[in-house]
Order: sequence, then C-alpha cells, then structure tokens
Amino acid sequence: MFSALCSSSFFLALPDQKALKIDVAFVPEEVHTSEITDKSVLIVDILRATSTITTAIANGASYLIPVNTPKEAFELYEQLDRNAILGGEVEGKRIEGFDLGNSVSEYTPSVVAGKPIIMRTTNGTRTINVCQSALNLVIGCFLNKTSCCRYLLELGCDILIVCSGEEGHFGIEDAVFAGACINILHQQMSNIEKTDSALACEMMYLQCKSDILDLLCKSEHGKYLINIGLGDDLILCAKEDITTVVPVYRDGKIIKAKG
Amino acid sequence: MFSALCSSSFFLALPDQKALKIDVAFVPEEVHTSEITDKSVLIVDILRATSTITTAIANGASYLIPVNTPKEAFELYEQLDRNAILGGEVEGKRIEGFDLGNSVSEYTPSVVAGKPIIMRTTNGTRTINVCQSALNLVIGCFLNKTSCCRYLLELGCDILIVCSGEEGHFGIEDAVFAGACINILHQQMSNIEKTDSALACEMMYLQCKSDILDLLCKSEHGKYLINIGLGDDLILCAKEDITTVVPVYRDGKIIKAKG
Repeated sequence: MFSALCSSSFFLALPDQKALKIDVAFVPEEVHTSEITDKSVLIVDILRATSTITTAIANGASYLIPVNTPKEAFELYEQLDRNAILGGEVEGKRIEGFDLGNSVSEYTPSVVAGKPIIMRTTNGTRTINVCQSALNLVIGCFLNKTSCCRYLLELGCDILIVCSGEEGHFGIEDAVFAGACINILHQQMSNIEKTDSALACEMMYLQCKSDILDLLCKSEHGKYLINIGLGDDLILCAKEDITTVVPVYRDGKIIKAKG
Repeated sequence: MFSALCSSSFFLALPDQKALKIDVAFVPEEVHTSEITDKSVLIVDILRATSTITTAIANGASYLIPVNTPKEAFELYEQLDRNAILGGEVEGKRIEGFDLGNSVSEYTPSVVAGKPIIMRTTNGTRTINVCQSALNLVIGCFLNKTSCCRYLLELGCDILIVCSGEEGHFGIEDAVFAGACINILHQQMSNIEKTDSALACEMMYLQCKSDILDLLCKSEHGKYLINIGLGDDLILCAKEDITTVVPVYRDGKIIKAKG
C-alpha cells in the first residue's frame, strides 16, 4: 500500500503508481461538497487562520473547534463550561470578549498547551466547515509546508487544495502556497495530473518563491493587515518549514495528525 | 484629455495621471454587472472565440452579433433574410446547419469580407453578453494584444479583464493573456493599481511568456481541442500582434474600433 511504503521512506518514487490528480479551488464557493468525499482536501488561509491553527496545534493545544460566528463560539464556550480558549477575528481584529485574536504570535505554548480552542475567523474556519465532507481534511501553511505535502502523499488519493481567499474573492497568498505544494508534490511524484488552476498556482509560486514575505506584503489582505497594525503577522506567516506538525480535521475537531 | 494625447503619441507617460485600477475576473460568473458601468471591460477567450472574432473583423466582416444559443442564431438569421454568415460551435465543433465553426483559419477575407456574422460559442459570446453594461467593451487576444492595450489606455478608465474560462471553470490561457496585457499596461503607465487576481495573472505570464504556444498546448481546453483534431487552431491563436484591429461591442454588434 502506498501509504505504508511512504511512511518509512519519505517521497519514495514508485514506478507503477497511478496518476495523482491535483486541483485548486480559488475560493471555497467553488467547492462541490459531493465531489470531495473521495479526496484529500488541503485547506489554506495563509493570512492567517491556517498559519495560526498550525501554530496552536504545534504548541500543544489539545484541539481546535472551528465555528462560523462569534455567537456560535460563545454558545460552545458555555457548553464546554468555559473550559476553552476563545480565539479569532472579525475584520482582522480580536473579537470583543475573546481571549485571543488571529495572530500566530499569540498562540504560544504557555497560553495554549493542553487546552481546547474555539476558533472563529472570517475565511479560514468557514472554509474548513464548507469542506467537512472530504475524505481527509488537512490544514496547511508555509510553516508546515513540506510535512503537509508528505502527509498528502502518504494518504495517496487525489488532492483538492481549497484557498480561503477573502470573502469570496481570490487571494494571491493562498494560491501561491497552493503552488508551492504542487511544486513539491510534482518533484516527488512524476505521475501527477494538474488542472489549469493547479498549473497556474505553480507558475505563480515559481515567479515569487525567492521572497514569499514580499509577496505577502504585496497581497491585498497583507496590505490590509499592515494598515491595521498587524504587519508583524506577515513575517511569522512567511516562515517556511519551521514545524513538522500537520493538523487534520476529524469529527468536528482539528487535531494533530499521527506522524 | 488623456485619450487625445495618447492618440498621437502611443504610450505617453503623464506625470500627473491618476492611478488606473486593473482587475481580472477568472470567469464571467464573477462579474457584477452593476459594477462595470464606468469601466472598460476586456473580454478574453483565447481558445477560441476572441481570436476568431478579431480575425473576422480584421478580415473585413462588416459586424458580428454574439448570441447565446444555436436556436437564437437561426432565428436572427431568418430576421436578417439569411443575409449573414452563421458561425460558432457546441463542444468545440461546428454546429449543424452553420456555415463556419470557431476556427481562426475559417474566417478568411474571401469568406467574411463585407458580411455580417451571427456568432454562437460556448464561452466567449456568452461572456460578451454578460458584460453588456460595461462603459466600453473591448475584444482581445494575442493576435491584437498591443493594439488592445493601447486602445484601453486611450479610453483612460479602470479596466476589468474578464476571462471566459470553460463553462464556469478557470482557464489558464485566458489568465495568461490577461497577464500579458497587465504587463504591457504597467510598462507604459507606472501608476497602476493591481488587484490580487491581476498580480497573479502577470506572474503566470512572466513564467511562460517565452512560449505561449506551449502554454496553450498544456491547457485543459488546448488538450481537448488537440484531441478533437483542432490542434492547428492553437498555433494560430498563439500568434502575437499580427493585427492592429481592435473589435469593440456597441449596441448589440461587434465592430472595428476607430483607430
């Protein structure tokens, strides 16, 4: 079995492997939920939800529950007897009454280790909830890029990378990250079939790979975050491969995938 | 006035020019028709409608009328007392009872000069009809790329490039052409504001500009056309700047813009 072979030997090339199809949805609105039940879906929201979620899980949070609205977050908080951290944003800013915003820097081990987190963000957590019917649901960002790709290869099924974008609009930072993954996957497995959107993302990545931070600074959402005083977040979200932890979504919770 | 200055001196840099905003819609479904009434819209369907329309107008067709269905085409044909050419495709192939398909090579001067054409294609003519509320509606392709950009600069208002894609899906060949135009426009006018999708298209173009034909051959729709025996069309659609003619849509007809 492909996954068993890969688990001991990272990126093993198999001569008779079937073609792996890789597609990219630029916004979650493109996803047909009935068409992802046999796929691995990689959720991307570089600025900032999937970067923050990866950091929280890497720093020992016991699990995260993604919710769609602040109201839903507060209700769940009560159901958990207030034994949770409330994290997330509206318009990029920490929600009133929440413990944390959506900055990677807030989710340190001393704050999150051993604790559940209820998370509400405008795009990222919504995208996760849209894609719940996926066979495998993986959370990725530049921080865990290579481990994410390794995990997707181990899973062995076709991949749909779902960019969160910005309230239904294309966001270049998510597409460039999708391209980075496609580039890694293709380097490790020659028999890959890319859709037009996958090919486009890889071309974007090849064009800017030498300076991901510069790309984040040029992006519309990056400029917005700089404008509201959160420019440091871009620096943290642009770091590549600083953790091997891969968060996955299962049965309503985001947990650490078994490595 | 900007347009008057530009008409005599191509790509004149003006020190006090206002920023020109350039956006790209990857599919016509993204267009909000109420938001384009003050914009120049550039319609793109590289494979093949806008390449064919440009060729037809350059070769002397008196005008083209884009319609959405074969039925609509036949009705209009009768209204014009059969004094028109019927052109277009369904699933890439010439429609039964039509004079021409959707290949650039069919629209020669001897066939089209002085004649009106009723045109039905799956994506391109539909995109034109979706964008009828635009202040200016311009038809572009690699064949008239530079003249198209010059004309858009002369018009002087914000630009939305609308890619036709493939039945609601992203098509890389249209996005790459959008990137080619953005690259030309930015070279000629420094004060340009690009959205994320515009930036993405330019990055794609910079990555493949040395071999546009190769890109067309790699695209999903390009592969489909090769598969149904229309591979030669890709060669003709990849030619750059072979005409200065710019087709525009006005009052229901596609005509040649006054140069």
